[in-house]
Amino acid sequence: MTHIYLDAMGGDNAPNCTVEGAMEALRADKDLKITLGGPVSEIEPLLQDAGDVRDRIALDDAPEIITNHDAPVMAIRQKKNSAQVRGMLMVKEKQADAFVSAGSTGATLAGGMFRLGRIDGVERPALAPLLPNGKGFFCLIDCGANVDCLPQYLPQFGVMGEAYMRCVQGVEKPRVGLVNIGAEAEKGNALVKAAYPLMESAPFHFVGNIEGRDITADQADVIVCDGFSGNLIMKFMEGVAETLMGIIKSEIYADARGKIGGIIAKPAFRRVKKRMDYTEVGGAPLLGVKGVVIKAHGSSNGHAIASAIKQAALMARKGLVDAIESEIAKQLNQ
Amino acid sequence: MTHIYLDAMGGDNAPNCTVEGAMEALRADKDLKITLGGPVSEIEPLLQDAGDVRDRIALDDAPEIITNHDAPVMAIRQKKNSAQVRGMLMVKEKQADAFVSAGSTGATLAGGMFRLGRIDGVERPALAPLLPNGKGFFCLIDCGANVDCLPQYLPQFGVMGEAYMRCVQGVEKPRVGLVNIGAEAEKGNALVKAAYPLMESAPFHFVGNIEGRDITADQADVIVCDGFSGNLIMKFMEGVAETLMGIIKSEIYADARGKIGGIIAKPAFRRVKKRMDYTEVGGAPLLGVKGVVIKAHGSSNGHAIASAIKQAALMARKGLVDAIESEIAKQLNQ
Repeated sequence: MTHIYLDAMGGDNAPNCTVEGAMEALRADKDLKITLGGPVSEIEPLLQDAGDVRDRIALDDAPEIITNHDAPVMAIRQKKNSAQVRGMLMVKEKQADAFVSAGSTGATLAGGMFRLGRIDGVERPALAPLLPNGKGFFCLIDCGANVDCLPQYLPQFGVMGEAYMRCVQGVEKPRVGLVNIGAEAEKGNALVKAAYPLMESAPFHFVGNIEGRDITADQADVIVCDGFSGNLIMKFMEGVAETLMGIIKSEIYADARGKIGGIIAKPAFRRVKKRMDYTEVGGAPLLGVKGVVIKAHGSSNGHAIASAIKQAALMARKGLVDAIESEIAKQLNQ
Repeated sequence: MTHIYLDAMGGDNAPNCTVEGAMEALRADKDLKITLGGPVSEIEPLLQDAGDVRDRIALDDAPEIITNHDAPVMAIRQKKNSAQVRGMLMVKEKQADAFVSAGSTGATLAGGMFRLGRIDGVERPALAPLLPNGKGFFCLIDCGANVDCLPQYLPQFGVMGEAYMRCVQGVEKPRVGLVNIGAEAEKGNALVKAAYPLMESAPFHFVGNIEGRDITADQADVIVCDGFSGNLIMKFMEGVAETLMGIIKSEIYADARGKIGGIIAKPAFRRVKKRMDYTEVGGAPLLGVKGVVIKAHGSSNGHAIASAIKQAALMARKGLVDAIESEIAKQLNQ
C-alpha cells in the first residue's frame, strides 16, 4: 500500500480542501493510505463524512503551523512539530512514500533540503511542474527553487527532468531544451552561454535552445532554465491565458451575435479550460531530494489536492528517486 | 515636415513590404517624408505605383546589406554603405528625424550605440515595445538589448520607459513596476534584489514588484526587467497566445455545435485578434540613444511597417529624445 503524508493545513483553502482532496484520492485508489499532518483537534471533526475510506486515513498531530510569513529555513529548523518537518522525517525514515503540501513553497524547499536531504551528487534540487503545450504537457525545471544558478546546475536539472518524464510520464526518449532568447548556441546571457556546452555533453537527448515563442510549441518534453526565469514563465503563462480569455469573453459579450455564438460554443470553451487546467496534473515535484515531494498550488481546491496525491503515489511507485539517483551517478562518472 | 529614414531591405518581406508600408504611411500623413535606404536599382522599380506620394519619397543608395548572419558590431563598423550606417548618420546630423528598420536587431542596436551614440548619462540603451494587457498597452523595457544587466541599469530603464509613456503615449503619471517572482521587496534573484531600492528612490512612480501572473493585469504602464527576461516575456506572450488560440480552434472544430458557435462568434474573434495584434502598435523603440530608432518585427508586413513609421514620427514630433535627456540629467543630479 502506498502511503502519502499530506500537510493538512497547507494552502489557501486548508484544512477543508486538503481533507476533501484526501478523500477523493482514497476513493479513486484502493491501494492508497494517507496520513494527515496538522493539529488533530482541527482535522478530526472534518472526517465525519470519510465513511468508507476512514480506515485508510491516519492522523499525525502536528500542532505547529508554518505560514507564508515564516522565514522558511528558520521555520524548518525550529518548528519541529509542524507537518512539514514531521512529514519529511517520515519520508526519510521510509514510514511514508511521499510528502504533499499546498503550503509555503519556501518551507517545502527547506524541508526537502534540510530534513530529507539531497540525493548524492545533486547540487540543487529543483521544482519541476508539468505545463500544457496544446499537444500534452512539458516539464519546466527549475520553477523557483534556485533563483540564482551556476551553469553546472542546468544539466543536472535536465537529468532530473528527463528521468521524471521517462520513468513517471512514460515519454520514451524525452527531448531536453534550454530556455534562451535565440536559437543559435552563442545566444543568451552569461549563464545560458556557459550552460550550453554542458547541456550538449550531458547524457540526454538535447535539442538545443528553446525561444519564448516555442516554449508551448511542443519542441521539448523537458525545458530547462534558472528558477527566476522558470517562475516567471510558469506564472506568466497563467496570466496571459487569463488575460486572453478575458479579452475573448469581453468581445463575445460585446454584441448579440457574439453572445449567441458564445452560448452555442460553450461546451468547446469548457473543454479548452479543462485542457489548460493545472488542477488536473497535480503540483510541482521537488526533484533531487531523497524522497518524493510535491508542492501543490497554494490556491488548490480539493480536486487539485487529489491530483497532487495521485501524482505523488505514481512517482513513488515508479521509483523516481532511485532513477534520478542512478542517472546522476552516471553523469558524475562520465 | 517629419523625415523618416527607412531601411528598405530590412525584414523577411523586404523590399516589397517596406516600400508598401512607406506608401501607406505617406498616404495617411501628409506631413511626412520618407527616405528609402538600400540598393537603388532594387528599390526604384517598386515605386511605379507610388503616384501621389512619389514626391515625398527620396532614395538613398546603400548597396551594402547587413543580414542576420553578420556579426552586428563588425558589420556596423565595416559596411559603411549600408542603410543602417547611412541612416543612423543622417539622424545624427539632423538630416532625418528617425530611423526605422525591420532588419537585424543586433545591427540596429550596434548602429544606435556606435553611429548615433548614447544620450549623456545613459549607461545602456534599451528596447521598449508596447505589449497588450487587455485594457491597453504597457511598455516592457528592456526586451533584449542587454541580456546581462547591472542593478543600476534598471532604474534608468524605468526613467526612459516612463518618459516614453508620458510624452509619447500620453499616460499622465505612468506606474513603473519591476518584474519579479514575488510581491515582497526581499524576493528575487541577486539582480532584482539589488535593483529594488534603486527603483524606490528613482524619480518615477514606482509601484513595486510585478509577478508573472500580473504582467498583463494592467498593474503598471512601464514594466522593467533585464533584457533576457524581457525577450523571454515578449516572445512567450506571442507563443502562449498562439497556442491557446490553437487549442480554442481545435476544440471549436471538434464538433458541429462548436463549429456553428464559432462561425456566429467569428466577428468577436476578429476583434480579439486585432486587440492582440502587434502590427497595430509599431515596433520596439531603442530608447537612450541620441535619436529616434525603431526596430520593427522581422516578419512585419506592409501595415506593420506603416505603423512603425507612424510611431517613429510621433516620437520625433513629441521630442522624446530631449525628454529622456532631461529626465536622465535630473536623475544624475539627485
